[in-house]
Amino acid sequence: MSFDPETLRYNDQGLLPVVAQDEHSGDVLMLAWMNAEAVVKTLETRRVTYWSRSRSELWVKGATSGHTQELIDLRVDCDRDCLLAIVRQTGPACHTNRRNCFYTSVKTGEEVELFAPEK
Amino acid sequence: MSFDPETLRYNDQGLLPVVAQDEHSGDVLMLAWMNAEAVVKTLETRRVTYWSRSRSELWVKGATSGHTQELIDLRVDCDRDCLLAIVRQTGPACHTNRRNCFYTSVKTGEEVELFAPEK
Repeated sequence: MSFDPETLRYNDQGLLPVVAQDEHSGDVLMLAWMNAEAVVKTLETRRVTYWSRSRSELWVKGATSGHTQELIDLRVDCDRDCLLAIVRQTGPACHTNRRNCFYTSVKTGEEVELFAPEK
Repeated sequence: MSFDPETLRYNDQGLLPVVAQDEHSGDVLMLAWMNAEAVVKTLETRRVTYWSRSRSELWVKGATSGHTQELIDLRVDCDRDCLLAIVRQTGPACHTNRRNCFYTSVKTGEEVELFAPEK
């Protein structure tokens, strides 16, 4: 069937969560948000484009940092209220300069850092 | 440092999104939501426990289906408003009986099914 971004289920701010996964390592890189316009732009340009909730504007990932995400595949979940973007990541995905955003782990009551920012 | 679930950043419904990833395949299985109580229960019991937004109650994943998730690792993202649960999944993760919830892909304007429900 043809894909219509309007058939996705957005929250009351018109957004849905998008999980970005590295095509090679399989690492979950980050979670960010898209509105319908960001979904369309991501599909048209193959440059992953989110909605920045802090800046209230479209956010072409890597537009300033150079740490872009090329879209390899976009998957829709069973409830149509979440997307999985398989991406080719250039540079670190996290704004802290780490390769992904999930860099602390909760172990027996302690939170420990798993990896440091890249040089 | 010691981990305090209250230091996570929940939305205005007291929830944050949690990405579940299979420890072996690396597949992203699903996205669901936790409140602080679900985070505590998940860490205490090592049985992944979400907050069901449709039923407005704690949801021990697999409690009725048997398709449980054993917590292997719980990771916190840079903004502390999203979690990554690395899990040992028993049976299919999706309520449609598919191995994960992201079973359609958007390809050149068409949405195609990637895999069918398990038998």
